[in-house]
Amino acid sequence: MQIALDAMGGDHGMEELIEGALHAVSEQADVRVSLVGDETQLQSFLESKKYPTDVISRIDVVHSSQVVGMDEPPVEAMRRKKDSSIMVAFDLVSRNEADAVVSAGNSGATMAAAIRKLKRLKNVSRPGIASAFPTLKKPVIIMDVGANVDCKPIHLYQFAVMASEFAQIYDVSNPRVGMLSNGEEVGKGNSLVKETYALLDNSSLNFAGNVEGRDVFRGEVDVIVCDGFVGNICLKVSEGLAEAAMMMLKDEIIQSTAAKVGYLLAKPAFNAFKKRVDYAEYGGASLLGINGICIICHGKSSSYAIKNAILEAAKMVKSNVNERIVEKLTADKARVAKET
Amino acid sequence: MQIALDAMGGDHGMEELIEGALHAVSEQADVRVSLVGDETQLQSFLESKKYPTDVISRIDVVHSSQVVGMDEPPVEAMRRKKDSSIMVAFDLVSRNEADAVVSAGNSGATMAAAIRKLKRLKNVSRPGIASAFPTLKKPVIIMDVGANVDCKPIHLYQFAVMASEFAQIYDVSNPRVGMLSNGEEVGKGNSLVKETYALLDNSSLNFAGNVEGRDVFRGEVDVIVCDGFVGNICLKVSEGLAEAAMMMLKDEIIQSTAAKVGYLLAKPAFNAFKKRVDYAEYGGASLLGINGICIICHGKSSSYAIKNAILEAAKMVKSNVNERIVEKLTADKARVAKET
Repeated sequence: MQIALDAMGGDHGMEELIEGALHAVSEQADVRVSLVGDETQLQSFLESKKYPTDVISRIDVVHSSQVVGMDEPPVEAMRRKKDSSIMVAFDLVSRNEADAVVSAGNSGATMAAAIRKLKRLKNVSRPGIASAFPTLKKPVIIMDVGANVDCKPIHLYQFAVMASEFAQIYDVSNPRVGMLSNGEEVGKGNSLVKETYALLDNSSLNFAGNVEGRDVFRGEVDVIVCDGFVGNICLKVSEGLAEAAMMMLKDEIIQSTAAKVGYLLAKPAFNAFKKRVDYAEYGGASLLGINGICIICHGKSSSYAIKNAILEAAKMVKSNVNERIVEKLTADKARVAKET
Repeated sequence: MQIALDAMGGDHGMEELIEGALHAVSEQADVRVSLVGDETQLQSFLESKKYPTDVISRIDVVHSSQVVGMDEPPVEAMRRKKDSSIMVAFDLVSRNEADAVVSAGNSGATMAAAIRKLKRLKNVSRPGIASAFPTLKKPVIIMDVGANVDCKPIHLYQFAVMASEFAQIYDVSNPRVGMLSNGEEVGKGNSLVKETYALLDNSSLNFAGNVEGRDVFRGEVDVIVCDGFVGNICLKVSEGLAEAAMMMLKDEIIQSTAAKVGYLLAKPAFNAFKKRVDYAEYGGASLLGINGICIICHGKSSSYAIKNAILEAAKMVKSNVNERIVEKLTADKARVAKET
């Protein structure tokens, strides 16, 4: 399997990304990575690394002369920077020289390039981003977490199908699908949620009804669908609260010696907890609905998160998730047409 | 000041509510509470309490023969249960026999009764719920957290005005207002957010632009506006994550003796942290935009939360917040009309 890594994206620079690639190929012998970016810089970093030859030999460098900045407007970047690392990475996939793209760069540009270069899957109106959230049980897949801010019922239905097929990669059979709402009862929700309810309920999905924000972390459903505006806020509120809570707790702990000692004693438990909720464990979010595989990572991804994202991409390639999405949408087409 | 407390609502029964009322009047000499509900039961509870006479003398009981269940459909409950504790509580305010209502009962019914009995403030299209969230700095007021699931720009603007006037009760002068969005840049957001931007920007509000979910807990703004669907999810995701995180952390801690000892040593710090993020500290959420004062509490409110809600209601009564809301909306009216 050949994974193309945008080696110029992300907040921590290329060394962190290269380390992630090296860890990934070390861990899994059937994975190869193409680092896409400035050849001279990438080669010199690679040569400085002490890894066994069979690991290094599974990494190659593909040159690109441009870089899309983290805050550049995506559409303009796509037009002006045809030789950027992110565009070249998708070129590799469209020429069948790579099976998937992993990027920690400008996520809007990554998404735009993915759709432009790889096109949408058959019967998918809008690709979207699926992200795993930790829960008290298994992680839950939430989709969409930011690609589509204004949605119609058919989009939420398609997110539900895509995320359900995606969840099955993680050994969840017949995933339970919830729709994020402001109350569990039928009839609760904004107009989008109300209009979508019957569509999900009458589909072949394992629809469990509405779920509230409070239920996200309970793990009672395997998939939660929402529009990308709500999903993005859900994701970022969670990240923001986790960060703020850790800072507040630290504030309190440093005020007493006993608490500091206590914290040190309990540190392994804290670390285990952190590992359980850390987004780095999940590598990145998956852009579903395109004719290919693409993992979008946090800009501040560590080498550990990049490694996990590459291995996740490899897992997706093996899973034939896209074929299953197309099959499911095609099979459900007549039934859905009646509802919309 | 006379606060009417719906003494039949909430998940923990009337004793918890009565305790809250007793603590509130003990703490503040100018506060009186009318317990609204079954007179016989309430009197017998009250008589069993050992409180100084001057405290007990500031609590009275107003009889009501019906109770609205926590899950009853609000509109139907209002029609069928005219002598319910929540309806009678608002009757007291409309007859000028009380200055505010506090309820931990069915929040939909509380809201519906408030609007029906007290009516909306002049120039307010839609009353909404303002809730305080803990941050790294001062709490931030988020509005609306659930009353209005589908909104128009004018509603978000009015929420911003109401929440800004409300924030000033807590000694925040010229509150900074952010609009919740999926990105900070102008032009980010769903269509509602995009359409609302200019209205907020051209108003006399201290508008700071868009804020992301991640920013909620940073405390860089004093007020955050959003529609009630998004606000409700934001509120419940936060509550759910805090709960789940505590459970996960506990799971990890009980797996080692060192961690258990460590936790005990650090417990005061944990408690201080919990106090900082506990919704009970804030008492409840305020229904703004009605011609009166109403605090809506969590169904599972402790006596401590009820006490805080009663004292918060008293503070609001003194603040003339409603007069200021009307003044501000009236003064801004011409300017806003141009934008909508």
